[in-house]
Amino acid sequence: MKIGLIGLGKMGYNLALNMKDHGYEVVANDVSADAMQSIRSEGLETADSIQMLAEKLPSPKVIWMMVPAGDITENVLQQATQYLSEGDILIDGGNSNYKDTIRRGQELKEKGIYFVDCGTSGGTDGARNGICTMIGAEPEAFEKVEKLFSDLSVENGYLHAGKPGSGHFLKMVHNGVEYGMMQAIAEGFEILDKSDFDYDYQEVSRVWNNGSVIRSWLMELMEHAFSKDPKLSGIRGVMNSSGEGKWTVEAALDFQASAPVIAMSLFMRYRSQENDTFHGKVVSALRNEFGGHAVVKSEE
Amino acid sequence: MKIGLIGLGKMGYNLALNMKDHGYEVVANDVSADAMQSIRSEGLETADSIQMLAEKLPSPKVIWMMVPAGDITENVLQQATQYLSEGDILIDGGNSNYKDTIRRGQELKEKGIYFVDCGTSGGTDGARNGICTMIGAEPEAFEKVEKLFSDLSVENGYLHAGKPGSGHFLKMVHNGVEYGMMQAIAEGFEILDKSDFDYDYQEVSRVWNNGSVIRSWLMELMEHAFSKDPKLSGIRGVMNSSGEGKWTVEAALDFQASAPVIAMSLFMRYRSQENDTFHGKVVSALRNEFGGHAVVKSEE
Amino acid sequence: MKIGLIGLGKMGYNLALNMKDHGYEVVANDVSADAMQSIRSEGLETADSIQMLAEKLPSPKVIWMMVPAGDITENVLQQATQYLSEGDILIDGGNSNYKDTIRRGQELKEKGIYFVDCGTSGGTDGARNGICTMIGAEPEAFEKVEKLFSDLSVENGYLHAGKPGSGHFLKMVHNGVEYGMMQAIAEGFEILDKSDFDYDYQEVSRVWNNGSVIRSWLMELMEHAFSKDPKLSGIRGVMNSSGEGKWTVEAALDFQASAPVIAMSLFMRYRSQENDTFHGKVVSALRNEFGGHAVVKSEE
Amino acid sequence: MKIGLIGLGKMGYNLALNMKDHGYEVVANDVSADAMQSIRSEGLETADSIQMLAEKLPSPKVIWMMVPAGDITENVLQQATQYLSEGDILIDGGNSNYKDTIRRGQELKEKGIYFVDCGTSGGTDGARNGICTMIGAEPEAFEKVEKLFSDLSVENGYLHAGKPGSGHFLKMVHNGVEYGMMQAIAEGFEILDKSDFDYDYQEVSRVWNNGSVIRSWLMELMEHAFSKDPKLSGIRGVMNSSGEGKWTVEAALDFQASAPVIAMSLFMRYRSQENDTFHGKVVSALRNEFGGHAVVKSEE
Repeated sequence: MKIGLIGLGKMGYNLALNMKDHGYEVVANDVSADAMQSIRSEGLETADSIQMLAEKLPSPKVIWMMVPAGDITENVLQQATQYLSEGDILIDGGNSNYKDTIRRGQELKEKGIYFVDCGTSGGTDGARNGICTMIGAEPEAFEKVEKLFSDLSVENGYLHAGKPGSGHFLKMVHNGVEYGMMQAIAEGFEILDKSDFDYDYQEVSRVWNNGSVIRSWLMELMEHAFSKDPKLSGIRGVMNSSGEGKWTVEAALDFQASAPVIAMSLFMRYRSQENDTFHGKVVSALRNEFGGHAVVKSEE
Repeated sequence: MKIGLIGLGKMGYNLALNMKDHGYEVVANDVSADAMQSIRSEGLETADSIQMLAEKLPSPKVIWMMVPAGDITENVLQQATQYLSEGDILIDGGNSNYKDTIRRGQELKEKGIYFVDCGTSGGTDGARNGICTMIGAEPEAFEKVEKLFSDLSVENGYLHAGKPGSGHFLKMVHNGVEYGMMQAIAEGFEILDKSDFDYDYQEVSRVWNNGSVIRSWLMELMEHAFSKDPKLSGIRGVMNSSGEGKWTVEAALDFQASAPVIAMSLFMRYRSQENDTFHGKVVSALRNEFGGHAVVKSEE
Repeated sequence: MKIGLIGLGKMGYNLALNMKDHGYEVVANDVSADAMQSIRSEGLETADSIQMLAEKLPSPKVIWMMVPAGDITENVLQQATQYLSEGDILIDGGNSNYKDTIRRGQELKEKGIYFVDCGTSGGTDGARNGICTMIGAEPEAFEKVEKLFSDLSVENGYLHAGKPGSGHFLKMVHNGVEYGMMQAIAEGFEILDKSDFDYDYQEVSRVWNNGSVIRSWLMELMEHAFSKDPKLSGIRGVMNSSGEGKWTVEAALDFQASAPVIAMSLFMRYRSQENDTFHGKVVSALRNEFGGHAVVKSEE
Repeated sequence: MKIGLIGLGKMGYNLALNMKDHGYEVVANDVSADAMQSIRSEGLETADSIQMLAEKLPSPKVIWMMVPAGDITENVLQQATQYLSEGDILIDGGNSNYKDTIRRGQELKEKGIYFVDCGTSGGTDGARNGICTMIGAEPEAFEKVEKLFSDLSVENGYLHAGKPGSGHFLKMVHNGVEYGMMQAIAEGFEILDKSDFDYDYQEVSRVWNNGSVIRSWLMELMEHAFSKDPKLSGIRGVMNSSGEGKWTVEAALDFQASAPVIAMSLFMRYRSQENDTFHGKVVSALRNEFGGHAVVKSEE
């Protein structure tokens, strides 16, 4: 089976090698000539444009997009669609917003093209050696590519979650859960760090990973991180985010679901990106107004 | 009526003047000779020690403590109690923890001394011109000093809340509510500040104070604060706290009451006191581990 | 000056009387014949359709919409616009989403019609006797209707907040702050209620309103509510919401602003609308799985 | 090696069998005659009193307490201590508050008795087949019982965390993290449940456990729970708690650490234990006061 793969970033590049390992012929395209050169050196075929990529595929064509969500996905999809026809399959393996995915699925359905949304988890290492895939697709579309997902995923690591959009939605919620779990773990270590005890955090992660209720892959990663930097003194606690946590909170708001933990995880990330806050100034000014409490002056 | 007043800090000093305005004879004591000198220049009597203060009072003696909660209150109370006897009244006008107050009330009751806990709100300006007092006391003790509270408080601004401890507990919860209200106001201004509009915050506070649902004294204070520093650029958003918010959350935990807003107000204060956080480092390290996301390096 | 008023709900009806009191001629329209009959009995003119309403106004026409946000506002605006021409003014006094308002402002601007967004606070009583208005408008549009806002608002209770959209945005954030303040107050009373003391909540509200830091209109309302039902035993704690709190949280997410208190206020409202939760079942099931902790069975 | 084990509840009973499997002689005591009868039928020795248990142990005696935290632990410890002398070792394997543990450690140290605190995780299944142990102890005490912990724990599943108290503190924080992780998972399923998609939760748990970032033992348990009750329709979402989450939040407050996720997890548990809330009534009453919004009446 021959697959067109658009996008050779951290995830796409490793996925291409994963595909090759499982006997797929891959023709890859990326905006970076370096990435294409590099993947060719691994023995994979490349195409200089999406059109050329599409032309190299037999019918029904299967194209896997692994590009950033938003405008780039929209743009690549618009291009790719030009070279696809009835019965072809377009897979979006990125982190697209599920509302976009539902819309795209309907638009492509009108052209007879199958649109398959695949939420992908497992990080770069997973992309290389076995991912976890949550797939939204019409049943007949899923049938055509089930083997592909089965091959690329770890054992028991793929799921046909439902109709188009359900894969990206499930991945989005997965990431929301991930935010909450990470913040929970992080708060635990913060409390340890502020306590009067003197813990070895690598050892703590190690013991928490063996037999405890909170054993998890995230804790394994934490053990690894502490093995390299025992007090994480080399990094700052700036927590960026890539959008799926925000979407999860927005979905909670839309459905009137209580999601305090996921929301607070997100807000603490936003807070971490600021050195100072306006809300803090307001509270500080108020305390000064009513109680004469000292304020900390800005440094000039 | 002659009152002994121990403590001439920001609150106590203004309270002394307030007492004098209402025709009370005041004999004051403070650890600061300057404060005592200053209050003498206002025409008030001072005493160099708690013993001397007690000796200057007719029976039944009435002593009002206006000193910091904790060890200082405990220490002053232990001293004062030596010079008090059956039927005398000791008022704690500070922010003592209600559990301490209940214990102290029982200890003094055994000696026949009335212990009256008085939660005091209104800031320094209130202390001077009319406070808000929440009083815990046995009914017969309250009767003896009701006029004092009535005189020092604004109109309708005093309440016999219940048995000993109920005054400090009520003041504690008042402060918890205050934390939540302040953070709510502060978040509102933060969202305004991050928006694409260009608001004049003094004007916003002004309009929010006239006819709106959120009109309040805190908003009046905010208008005043913005009148002096329109963007609060002179201060940093470091939000300190003096303990009553923490006690309110602890009470919520003890009673299994949900208090998410008061708790989050407190946590944001703690957060504001740090330039960097360990929990942020943990989350950042995890994101790097599983997704190769960039971390922000510590500055050397 | 003659004003067209569309919408005679709780707010619009009182606003019509407020206009009349200030010497405005009002021609009103509503989908409810009863509301129109009722307002006629107060001596105001009505029009059976938006077209007829528009025809009764001199140029430049001024129409004030006071209808529910969303489809109804859109629909009324589309109709009204048909009968307006260059230089006329359309005011949206409802709680429209500011993003809609910005779009509408641009659409009407292309037709030379001034669109003025007016966030209105103060409740029904305010509508009747003096509201608080936050107005977004081009300066030349605001000039034409400033007197109207000045007349309908309480003293110092109107603000030209900025360009179109800024009024509704400011009102939205006002409501977000309101959510947080209400939840803070509510948590305070909950902690009092769960404590071992026996407070009279009407008296607590009264004393908190006189001289304390948290004195506010909301606390006044609370005193009134407790005067009617001392323990609120007649009502259930189901907290509905009308959308502006949700929008405020969404805005916070869009601007990456931390708004934990406003968000938690909203989540507690959602939670209150459910008798049982799926997240509760999940946690309960997990506790049973790992620790054999008892679960509460569903009632058949 | 012969061990005295006090407490044959869910954890202690399984631990006794685990000890036996590893070749330890066990003499067990419990307040329940049934439990003692039952463990005898497994071939273990019992003692009718703590004194008798102590008398059956060779010196240095090693006693493991596996009883509920609080008064029971205190009581058992006071009794056991009477029969212990210099060089003997008393292990508290329960969930004691670390502040009690530190105090107890100092008291026993004065008598020359080693006090070892062991936080135990892994649930009943872990107790039987391999637990996770976090141990606080003086180094010389740990040395004497390291093999015991090594034998009873899963591979790599024990840690000498530091001085006395550090084991219980670490276990407490572990449970705080557990609260946060559970609530994060639960919120994810709640959002799925409120969405328009139709997920098979057992399948979702299964795929999230294979290759995803959030794979964890808790997710495995969730898969098992859903296998028995696909929509958890048999249980109510009442989330009880046993104290360690509360202590973790209290520790966060004591150290001025931000722990929003752990705190919110706890508050949602408290909320789930109520059918109605006073804070909800307050907000509902306020909305009625200012906006005339309808309230839900109490059912008579």
